Amino acid sequence: MKKVKTITISKSAYENNDLEADRLRGDLKNRGLFVVNVMSSPGAGKTTTLEGLIKLIGTKYKAGVIEADIDSDIDAVRISQSTGCRALQLHTGGMCHVDASMLRESIENLGEDDLDLIFLENVGNLVCPAEFDTGASLDMMILSVPEGDDKPLKYPLIFEKSRLVLINKTDTLGYFNFDVEKCTERIRMRNPSARVVTVSAKTGEGMESAASALVEFIENDRKEKGYARTE
Amino acid sequence: MKKVKTITISKSAYENNDLEADRLRGDLKNRGLFVVNVMSSPGAGKTTTLEGLIKLIGTKYKAGVIEADIDSDIDAVRISQSTGCRALQLHTGGMCHVDASMLRESIENLGEDDLDLIFLENVGNLVCPAEFDTGASLDMMILSVPEGDDKPLKYPLIFEKSRLVLINKTDTLGYFNFDVEKCTERIRMRNPSARVVTVSAKTGEGMESAASALVEFIENDRKEKGYARTE
Repeated sequence: MKKVKTITISKSAYENNDLEADRLRGDLKNRGLFVVNVMSSPGAGKTTTLEGLIKLIGTKYKAGVIEADIDSDIDAVRISQSTGCRALQLHTGGMCHVDASMLRESIENLGEDDLDLIFLENVGNLVCPAEFDTGASLDMMILSVPEGDDKPLKYPLIFEKSRLVLINKTDTLGYFNFDVEKCTERIRMRNPSARVVTVSAKTGEGMESAASALVEFIENDRKEKGYARTE
Repeated sequence: MKKVKTITISKSAYENNDLEADRLRGDLKNRGLFVVNVMSSPGAGKTTTLEGLIKLIGTKYKAGVIEADIDSDIDAVRISQSTGCRALQLHTGGMCHVDASMLRESIENLGEDDLDLIFLENVGNLVCPAEFDTGASLDMMILSVPEGDDKPLKYPLIFEKSRLVLINKTDTLGYFNFDVEKCTERIRMRNPSARVVTVSAKTGEGMESAASALVEFIENDRKEKGYARTE
């Protein structure tokens, strides 16, 4: 198939998204496919971070990417070219988030038989994506230094839900008034067990730690036996 | 009254938001009150920009501020302290946007008899706030340099709706790969008549031009006679 394909899904097929999300998560586990739901504000560096992570772990796990955007396919084309991964551009038809039915249909459109790992780059938004369980194996978020260290105070839910939080653009710490320690405390206030890693996807600093953290989540998921569906 | 008050509105009172938005806009015009709906991503510098604008035009127009957030009241406290303005913290109860009923109720809670101008700092989000007409007199957005110059491609609606666009954090242009000319072209592709002003709210550069542009919008609004409601 082509390396980049575009589909549009502008409404959810399911009435009970939580149930469908649990079902999808169960199906993914049964197939041995790990899906990471990557959330952040617009421009926090999701695509650059994914490029870095795929370069570091792409030989261990064969990866594909789903790029959700309101419009344009620049991210899907870019990441496919830079990493060689198959990428699907998901147009959400104006919708501010991705839900479980949208993710399931996107995975089917991307094709997953040969994949171990799929990154879903969610719509850039700190509010709505956190409200809809996508059914992904892991919720991860990226907060960038220029956005400010107060974001866990203002957008609690996304921090509560994310088990892995990358603080990105640390190369700009000298320029912005951003206190990493205070921000980490505020993240932990929302989610005491969150794994927090500081990175600069641009310079590569910290990216190996981020990749190791992600590998741990994948391997732990694979080790868990007797996964019980909630239905 | 106290300088800062907090209210929570977590659902809309109206079924037909567009009609109510037009009604509110008409009422505001009849009272000679100008309301600016300020939208941006999280951390693009809305509060700092408003502080700068209020310092420049606060003697000409008596201003109040409504700070909409999912949680916390740090912005309302901060802007009230730095500008002396009366500020209302609107908690949206998890909602990702402000609509016309929420704005009307917020204005009533802030108190508007003595005011000429109210800034509504919307929830940081490039998607949902653009989908709901608040009834404000002017939609304005702030795009910050660290977010990238591709945002008008990915988030079309907010650029279509905003008659005034500030490109903020120009003091970081040397650091980020952001093409102001290309970005302005992309904004104009979405809204050919958008007024685009480059500013650094941090250093003050360009803020006088932004204030002049805003004053023009206010004065033009006051000059318009025979405003026809759409109802």
